[in-house]
Amino acid sequence: MRAAVYYGPNKVEIADVPEPSPGHGQVKVAVGFNGICGTDLHEYYAGPIFIPTEPHPLTGQQLPIVLGHEFSGTVAEVGTGVTGVAVGDRVAIEPLYRCGHCGPCRAGNYNICAQIGFHGLMSDGGMAEFTVVPRNMIHHLPDNVSLELGALVEPMSVAYHAATLGEPKSDDTAMVFGAGPIGIGLWFALRGKGLENVYVVEPSTTRRKSIEALGARTLDPTALDVPAYVADLTDGRGADAVYDAAGVQASVETALGCVGARKPMVSVAIYEKPLSTPLIDLVMNESRIQGSLCYTSADYDAVIALMAEGKYDTTGWVDKISLDGVIDDGFEALHAGTKMKVLVDPSVGGSGER
Amino acid sequence: MRAAVYYGPNKVEIADVPEPSPGHGQVKVAVGFNGICGTDLHEYYAGPIFIPTEPHPLTGQQLPIVLGHEFSGTVAEVGTGVTGVAVGDRVAIEPLYRCGHCGPCRAGNYNICAQIGFHGLMSDGGMAEFTVVPRNMIHHLPDNVSLELGALVEPMSVAYHAATLGEPKSDDTAMVFGAGPIGIGLWFALRGKGLENVYVVEPSTTRRKSIEALGARTLDPTALDVPAYVADLTDGRGADAVYDAAGVQASVETALGCVGARKPMVSVAIYEKPLSTPLIDLVMNESRIQGSLCYTSADYDAVIALMAEGKYDTTGWVDKISLDGVIDDGFEALHAGTKMKVLVDPSVGGSGER
Repeated sequence: MRAAVYYGPNKVEIADVPEPSPGHGQVKVAVGFNGICGTDLHEYYAGPIFIPTEPHPLTGQQLPIVLGHEFSGTVAEVGTGVTGVAVGDRVAIEPLYRCGHCGPCRAGNYNICAQIGFHGLMSDGGMAEFTVVPRNMIHHLPDNVSLELGALVEPMSVAYHAATLGEPKSDDTAMVFGAGPIGIGLWFALRGKGLENVYVVEPSTTRRKSIEALGARTLDPTALDVPAYVADLTDGRGADAVYDAAGVQASVETALGCVGARKPMVSVAIYEKPLSTPLIDLVMNESRIQGSLCYTSADYDAVIALMAEGKYDTTGWVDKISLDGVIDDGFEALHAGTKMKVLVDPSVGGSGER
Repeated sequence: MRAAVYYGPNKVEIADVPEPSPGHGQVKVAVGFNGICGTDLHEYYAGPIFIPTEPHPLTGQQLPIVLGHEFSGTVAEVGTGVTGVAVGDRVAIEPLYRCGHCGPCRAGNYNICAQIGFHGLMSDGGMAEFTVVPRNMIHHLPDNVSLELGALVEPMSVAYHAATLGEPKSDDTAMVFGAGPIGIGLWFALRGKGLENVYVVEPSTTRRKSIEALGARTLDPTALDVPAYVADLTDGRGADAVYDAAGVQASVETALGCVGARKPMVSVAIYEKPLSTPLIDLVMNESRIQGSLCYTSADYDAVIALMAEGKYDTTGWVDKISLDGVIDDGFEALHAGTKMKVLVDPSVGGSGER
């Protein structure tokens, strides 16, 4: 079968690899769509970062590895000992391996397992015609949730998990910094949680237009004193929940200037370096910065349920490409900022965009 | 009466000022001891910062102002309309003015009132023979709590409040960064909350020796990889509650390296500038930074109760001086680091140390 194989930085090839077979407790999935994640870009341009160069303790795998951890598909074969999954089932994959016995795992927070692994980074993933996953990674998709949406459950769950950690109530004022895929996911999640007053702060006109087309209210931080605007909007109280999905100096500084007393800024970004952070802002109103990483199955369930209610929309921000287009129409286009989210359809031959 | 009056930076004079009289709802206190706070030093060397140069909205006062917001004393006179306070009562003062109607005030968090004022910064304070305070600032001292300890209730409540925000349980491992007066207060507070496993991280040998003499276990961050030590100590879990009472780059970086999954670093320091902060540490284990400011009456009650149980000790870290010694034996000695905490006794004439 054909797959996008990672050999090292700037070396991803569409190769013929053996089709995998499901072992005991495993499920073979014919991949529908696989999204390209910022993590994949980091691995391509500056990796290996997460991809192991020696056998991973949970998967035993190391590079070369088939990329792809955001995917949906149709069950093609079921291994022995698997219950509740049948050939033909439409599924989304929750791609986390966890040790199961560390403190976070025992507390149910396996998303921060000390040994965490991703299917598609620490084992052969979804940028392939087929992949094999453990049974516990399978989430069924309702009939009215497309495989395109199914491939977006993973990043939307990253955002939903972060949204929840901000503890927003439906009448709260929330702010999202950054309108990339996670920022969009935060907007959908907060709307799904019943919030009407959500403001998305994004300096890029293109990205603002994109999320505005989905119905979001936006603020341009290059044209507006955002903390002053929010103070005015909230009679000086500040925002009830603030989310940083941009991960840069300007977003953190501005976001902290918006957080209300005893309220959180949730960090859901991969900060590439330490940022100059005005901690005095946290002290003066007893606010906090709360980190957020990945998701657990509860987030998957919530996102899939909201998708079934029609609360997510791919219009204007999701592109589909073939496996042959992964480098040029995927990594390069995302890196250049000409696309925001790309789904790879491994079942389609030929090169380029679909 | 004699008082230490602040006129501006580097200008504090021991002056003769009119003795105040209590108005309706007010209490006149003969000051027992008044502690010098880091805030006072900032005002002296680099102010005015908090001291108003135009009438404060809650007190109507502006400089020149009698310094002193950490004090105890004996009630000398009671104004009309005051109940529950009698001449001769031994008291500690909770010196916060608050508006009473902003969001934080209504939620009971008047320590982060938008208009917060301090008796001794925004009105004539305790570095004087007498001062007049509103009834709601009065906390009675039990017979077995000395006026020296009474003057320490304020800084110890700053620390107790922060200790509580870290949500420690008695079998937790806690870490305190910085062994100044607030660090010492955190150690007493955590011990008072029943924690046995408290580690104080402090680079200064003098300060380490000082808190060790009180019974604390200390770590020298210049000689030890503190995060590695803590990881080893906790089987890789990290500390359950971490407190930054140092407020400098090295403490924040090291402290964040010690925080366990889903656990807090509480910031209880006046960060003079933004610090380079590895926010990725918060993301990877979903930990948080929680700001802490001042105290409310519940903290005063808790600290006074612990003092009555004998849980606080001034040995080795508290010096007493006369009012005439405020500059040389107070500000200058604290600034030079030759003393850690200084209590001024305004009833004593003559110059220098007692």
